[in-house]
Amino acid sequence: MRVEVINTGSELLLGQVLNTHLKFLADSLLPIGLRIDRQVTVPDGPAITSALHDAAARSDVVLITGGLGPTTDDLTRDLVAAYLGLDLILDPLILATIEAYFARRGITPTSRIQRQAQRPLAATVLQNDHGTAPGLYFPPIRRPDSSLSPHLFLLPGPPRELHPMFTQRALPILISLLPSPPTNTMLTYRTTGLGESAIEALLGESLLNLGIEVGYCARLGEVDLRLIGPTATLQSATPIITSRLGSHLVSKENLSLEMVVINQLIATRQTLSTAESCTGGLLAHRLTNPPGASAAFTQSFVTYSNQAKHHTLGIPTELLESAGPVSAPVATAMAEAARHLASTDHALATTGFAGPTGGTPAHPLGTVFIALASPHLPTVVERHTFHTDRESVKILAAQAALDLLRRSLLLHPPT
Amino acid sequence: MRVEVINTGSELLLGQVLNTHLKFLADSLLPIGLRIDRQVTVPDGPAITSALHDAAARSDVVLITGGLGPTTDDLTRDLVAAYLGLDLILDPLILATIEAYFARRGITPTSRIQRQAQRPLAATVLQNDHGTAPGLYFPPIRRPDSSLSPHLFLLPGPPRELHPMFTQRALPILISLLPSPPTNTMLTYRTTGLGESAIEALLGESLLNLGIEVGYCARLGEVDLRLIGPTATLQSATPIITSRLGSHLVSKENLSLEMVVINQLIATRQTLSTAESCTGGLLAHRLTNPPGASAAFTQSFVTYSNQAKHHTLGIPTELLESAGPVSAPVATAMAEAARHLASTDHALATTGFAGPTGGTPAHPLGTVFIALASPHLPTVVERHTFHTDRESVKILAAQAALDLLRRSLLLHPPT
Repeated sequence: MRVEVINTGSELLLGQVLNTHLKFLADSLLPIGLRIDRQVTVPDGPAITSALHDAAARSDVVLITGGLGPTTDDLTRDLVAAYLGLDLILDPLILATIEAYFARRGITPTSRIQRQAQRPLAATVLQNDHGTAPGLYFPPIRRPDSSLSPHLFLLPGPPRELHPMFTQRALPILISLLPSPPTNTMLTYRTTGLGESAIEALLGESLLNLGIEVGYCARLGEVDLRLIGPTATLQSATPIITSRLGSHLVSKENLSLEMVVINQLIATRQTLSTAESCTGGLLAHRLTNPPGASAAFTQSFVTYSNQAKHHTLGIPTELLESAGPVSAPVATAMAEAARHLASTDHALATTGFAGPTGGTPAHPLGTVFIALASPHLPTVVERHTFHTDRESVKILAAQAALDLLRRSLLLHPPT
Repeated sequence: MRVEVINTGSELLLGQVLNTHLKFLADSLLPIGLRIDRQVTVPDGPAITSALHDAAARSDVVLITGGLGPTTDDLTRDLVAAYLGLDLILDPLILATIEAYFARRGITPTSRIQRQAQRPLAATVLQNDHGTAPGLYFPPIRRPDSSLSPHLFLLPGPPRELHPMFTQRALPILISLLPSPPTNTMLTYRTTGLGESAIEALLGESLLNLGIEVGYCARLGEVDLRLIGPTATLQSATPIITSRLGSHLVSKENLSLEMVVINQLIATRQTLSTAESCTGGLLAHRLTNPPGASAAFTQSFVTYSNQAKHHTLGIPTELLESAGPVSAPVATAMAEAARHLASTDHALATTGFAGPTGGTPAHPLGTVFIALASPHLPTVVERHTFHTDRESVKILAAQAALDLLRRSLLLHPPT
């Protein structure tokens, strides 16, 4: 079944509202094996009809969001009825539901509300539990020009009305239309330390030869690898990916790097603290996002100034002066001090020049030292250079630090 | 000029990535008087060509995002060249730029990278300062079927590459195409502590009566107020907004809350430290984003565990047990300890139940205490309850803490 989405609303095209509908609808449809083939945003008004004409010619299902409200710019109901050659009638049951909705809130509705109670007889009402405008579903209808319309769903624009209505009312209708249970599934693998083209080179034709659809999504410091195909085929792809990507593979279950690290620490009953200079708290912020993180992550010393590095972590003033605060010896000392002061199994430290000013001839802007202190192992220090802006240096340094710990936990499981 | 946007990328239609392009492009075009008339999302592949055919027939300008990367699913460059009837040639200058980009990072590029260095001769290169794929601009070209193509911009998909390239390279070209210089400008005011409808109620008809177009953009814990109109009229609106919004007005120059706080501290030569429990480092992360933050912000004690609160900040174990770690007395003690240990003028502290588990009958999930210790003033504590998810509680708590300091700095300038 081919599915298209039409989002109506001038506020989306003016940038006033971020369009989250596409992502929500796609996330909801994928588990039942449906994909959205095209999405269009049009302003309130006659462009809705032209978009519907285009989409209907190509699609089995068209989902339309927005324009079901009571105001004069809410035209979706009228335009779709006209497109189908159907008359709107006032549905007393919808009107009673809307009046009850207002009565519960102690509001006297204006006469405009009657607009929302109109529908063509051929439409099925999709109840709105979180607002006044009901949704409508139209099965295929012979249009005045004798063409057959697609399955049409009219859905409300506000996400808190759309989401429950789609999940509870529209999705069961869509499932009933499917010829057979869904066969394809999707797997998302998270990777780090490799660019898109490097991953593609490592995988070669191996997955394409299995008939798997491969996609990439790159973010700062990480790339997601997305596979779509029959469930059994996808399972046979996992060993290929595992062997070719090696330690660059962060998660087979679409888990974030911080979630993988926290989960691994909790599973092995180990604890972590951090000492942060250039990441400025971002490392701790990411480590405290996973629910239950407090079982593994206990504290961070964000020592931004030299004085804080000296007073709080006890880094000798002489070392800060001789080696410089951005140096391997200071990163090492920070990690070891945090591990000692927090009494944790591991400690990560970051120190670097995030910019826009700073840096030395030996350690130019973007230089970051990352250190990991762990039990029974010498402290490891990595030097990175990130040629980018201040906020991106923070993000990449935090990513590199989390990944240093992740790889070390892989290599050195607790004894 | 009629403008349409084509977003390419299967990841957008599969729901893996939220499409923020439309909002960004609309926000960027509005100040120069351009609006987006239609936006479409299509998967990687031949649908790009069909969407381009449709958009070109209706538009003067078509902006295409995505599909400029090095992998086999990156087809925009090839499909647009074919649509225009142009050949791709290898541009040695682009190749050298990409190779230099990799060399700076110590990476050996794969041969695939050559794809990104290809362009038709008729295209103008839009330099990419944050990635490898350059953008391309095509002025109107006589196509093989003798129709004239619209102004075409090929832009990268990753937001951190798209945003600077569009602002710095594409927007100047678009401005040069305008029949007359834009007369309207846009001002963005940042506010906090009020919802959209509350701001609208406070402003009443005052701005609309001046002929100013007013828009709102709500994010977690803040609302931007966007005014569009002739420059002189906008200036006359400033006193109205200042008087009606009072201390809810964070910035008249679209500065973030952390930037306003850091700037104010630097201007008055004051320093700040933080002691964070439920915000888990986010407060320090935000405070270290503004360039030059180190002149005011010196350190954060991210004391996530009770043990860390006791050992690092010296919070008495008896107090943690009697009052509970999420309490006004502990927030107060954390702020005062941070101020003392870090020797800063001010210290902010946060402690709360971010969820998804935790909470007590007296202090349910979402309860957050925020304290501010300052010179010559008793320590202030605020209690908030945020009925939302874990990550949103962190964001709202950090926002409330920064705002507590901002308002205090307004009320109590240093003597």
